[in-house]
Amino acid sequence: MTESFTQRLLDTLGPDLVALGDDIAERYQSDWAGLPRTRPLALVRPRNTEQVSALMALCHAEGVPVVPQGGRTGISGAAHPRADAVALSLERMTRIEAVDGEAAQIVAEAGVVLEAAQSAARDAGMMLGIDIGSRGSCQLGGVIATNAGGNTVIRYGMARDHVLGLEVVLADGTVIRDMLGLIKNNAGLDVKQLFIGSEGLLGVITRCVLRLQPAPVASETALCAAADTDAVIALLVHVRAALGPQLSGFEVMWPSFYTCMSEGAGVALALPAGGPHVLIEATGFAATALRETVEQALGEALEQGILTDAVLAKSVQEGRRLWAIRESVAEFSTVLGPIVPFDVSIPLHQMSQTVAALEAGIAARWPGARALTYGHIGDNNLHLVVALPESSDTLAETALKTFVYDAIRDCGGSVSAEHGIGAIKRAYLSHTRSEAEIALMRAVKATLDPKAILNPGKSFAG
Amino acid sequence: MTESFTQRLLDTLGPDLVALGDDIAERYQSDWAGLPRTRPLALVRPRNTEQVSALMALCHAEGVPVVPQGGRTGISGAAHPRADAVALSLERMTRIEAVDGEAAQIVAEAGVVLEAAQSAARDAGMMLGIDIGSRGSCQLGGVIATNAGGNTVIRYGMARDHVLGLEVVLADGTVIRDMLGLIKNNAGLDVKQLFIGSEGLLGVITRCVLRLQPAPVASETALCAAADTDAVIALLVHVRAALGPQLSGFEVMWPSFYTCMSEGAGVALALPAGGPHVLIEATGFAATALRETVEQALGEALEQGILTDAVLAKSVQEGRRLWAIRESVAEFSTVLGPIVPFDVSIPLHQMSQTVAALEAGIAARWPGARALTYGHIGDNNLHLVVALPESSDTLAETALKTFVYDAIRDCGGSVSAEHGIGAIKRAYLSHTRSEAEIALMRAVKATLDPKAILNPGKSFAG
Repeated sequence: MTESFTQRLLDTLGPDLVALGDDIAERYQSDWAGLPRTRPLALVRPRNTEQVSALMALCHAEGVPVVPQGGRTGISGAAHPRADAVALSLERMTRIEAVDGEAAQIVAEAGVVLEAAQSAARDAGMMLGIDIGSRGSCQLGGVIATNAGGNTVIRYGMARDHVLGLEVVLADGTVIRDMLGLIKNNAGLDVKQLFIGSEGLLGVITRCVLRLQPAPVASETALCAAADTDAVIALLVHVRAALGPQLSGFEVMWPSFYTCMSEGAGVALALPAGGPHVLIEATGFAATALRETVEQALGEALEQGILTDAVLAKSVQEGRRLWAIRESVAEFSTVLGPIVPFDVSIPLHQMSQTVAALEAGIAARWPGARALTYGHIGDNNLHLVVALPESSDTLAETALKTFVYDAIRDCGGSVSAEHGIGAIKRAYLSHTRSEAEIALMRAVKATLDPKAILNPGKSFAG
Repeated sequence: MTESFTQRLLDTLGPDLVALGDDIAERYQSDWAGLPRTRPLALVRPRNTEQVSALMALCHAEGVPVVPQGGRTGISGAAHPRADAVALSLERMTRIEAVDGEAAQIVAEAGVVLEAAQSAARDAGMMLGIDIGSRGSCQLGGVIATNAGGNTVIRYGMARDHVLGLEVVLADGTVIRDMLGLIKNNAGLDVKQLFIGSEGLLGVITRCVLRLQPAPVASETALCAAADTDAVIALLVHVRAALGPQLSGFEVMWPSFYTCMSEGAGVALALPAGGPHVLIEATGFAATALRETVEQALGEALEQGILTDAVLAKSVQEGRRLWAIRESVAEFSTVLGPIVPFDVSIPLHQMSQTVAALEAGIAARWPGARALTYGHIGDNNLHLVVALPESSDTLAETALKTFVYDAIRDCGGSVSAEHGIGAIKRAYLSHTRSEAEIALMRAVKATLDPKAILNPGKSFAG
């Protein structure tokens, strides 16, 4: 069957679109989740929607699974290939079809790299309000399929909030085209919502319309020191009320992160270690007014004892230096060696006790482990990175995950804030979602993909 | 069957929750769509989610249709009852469970009136970013089920953008409870998105978590005069770039509306009639800076010839007077008699020619008709109100709808911007949605409601 399938695949799509065996380069054999490399049954790289549709129709007819791939930068393994499945890369669909400054939207194919879309928006005097660390490699289709977050969610929201239109190829090759790009369109069900954050289980995103934002003319960066997590929350409430939509970043670094990474990555610190530190970003449309508003907000926070110290950057360069410690996350593997990363959400009122309980619990159970905590707490999002002692085995890693995810379940949080479930968090989906919710996800999946060929074994697939 | 069903309904839920026959007050027999009054088979008014679930389980078992009702303020007839169906009113589920100023969210039952939720948010020093004309009567469940819009969409988005959590009872009584209220939660499919804007066809919304916003401390109101629609669009682009998220309202009134309503409703005008007029609202977090930014933006627009005239309100009272003409829509029936209202979306680059073609076409085809045009064009949303000559019959009204909706289809717009499809726009759904999209909506409906008991005959129901 398999051999004749690959032959029919070649017959249908031609050798330009299909690669087999040794012709499949290593980069298509894994994503950033770090799972063992797997060579897919075939690699297909269509140049347009019709070719995606033809591929899906064939795979649907023959019952052959398909794993959609964007930039393969996901760290949950949603794009990790399977030996029995076609890997479908959208990387050749890179056309930016329109950048409309009046309507404030961009129309693009799914394979456009995020940075290219950001750059096209800037050229039109606007900005795209989605920004994540993998901007130079991740693709719009993958950004939407994982409902990506990032550092500016507090201001501009998740990927879902930017999607004004989608074109999607269903499992059987049917093309769903909602590309009118209207901000208001309540004509029946908004079916495109189904595919946002669906991790490739319900359809293949081929094109999109994304909202653009007016570009701010001024920005301010401040690094603040607080006594404890409760003071950090008080600071969030204070600056949110003072700055409103001018607050565009609120990044917390707990002492574990701040101290370990400054020493390990050799970053000179603008403020000495102590309690948690917060990076505040503000953007605005009148430079002097923005500066005064931020100065006043920080001054009040110092006077009221919410802050113990604060530095407001005097220049763009100084702002970049304040961010250096937060951006040292790229050095995790150098500083810590192998890590177990967690991307979770925690209700704000549980943040203080949960962070303390996680750090204390890990220290008590795994002596010698290093646990670093940082995150976007205005969005409920906590990142926790744990380096277990060198002697630790797979059992210790599993026990660690159980410990962390159980704590997240018990505080009413989510086991995946922004990276999805993919291949590696499937065991924990029921920590956050009820049986009824998972049954509903699977019922929708069975309706849209009755042969279960789209990304089997990932996320909520049965 | 019917008689024994109502008996079983009484047995299951008790006489306190169930009204029959003459005990069903007139207000439950229609919504604001103006359809002929219909007495439902029974009126059920549960006090909690368990009672909604019990009702749905019974109706599912017996195959009896259910029409969910919120405040019945919809003008598309989605909440209009049927003689063969139970009317399910959520009006007794009015508990505001929590207003959390730190987490910036409100937790409430579906029957809470929008204005009560707005007021609770204000009491906590925050604001709810949803505001529509029917705020004193509409209920949160209905607002979410129709993905309501309103005047502040340009700043805060549609209802969907505010929903952080939902509790929904499915057709068979299953309760789906996603009430964690997390801003980031990518654990599997975000199933709550299915129910937003579903007009009661997929489930009954019983509780919700809504996002709150920091309350601005200052606002500015300006009335502007432009030469034509293209100048209005240039003004939108200009003030959006100058004000960014401080732009909270951009309401266009074409001369047809402005002149007719000022004369008919006796509103003294701040600027003489001529080309289109625009009401601009700006809100901010620093009063002096906001005033200066708005003054500068309007000054530049005047210098560049985008505007022909502008008035910036000097006080809150003067701001209200500038809004009087826009708010004269409450007087439509007094000024115009019976009207045919249209709520449509138009791509921005088609706005100018489509508005002109609609006004000219109506004048040519229906001499003596009055067509008034206004709308939120920053959101693509145009409202058109037509008073046909007194002698007109139903055929003329149908011909008018065909003429308008065909023009909307041809320009790539939507036949429903914010009011949904309900009972009265079903014939035009395929003007905006493809066969494939409608088939997908119906497949999802068949999965969630296999006996088709939820709001039959409405929106995309088969």
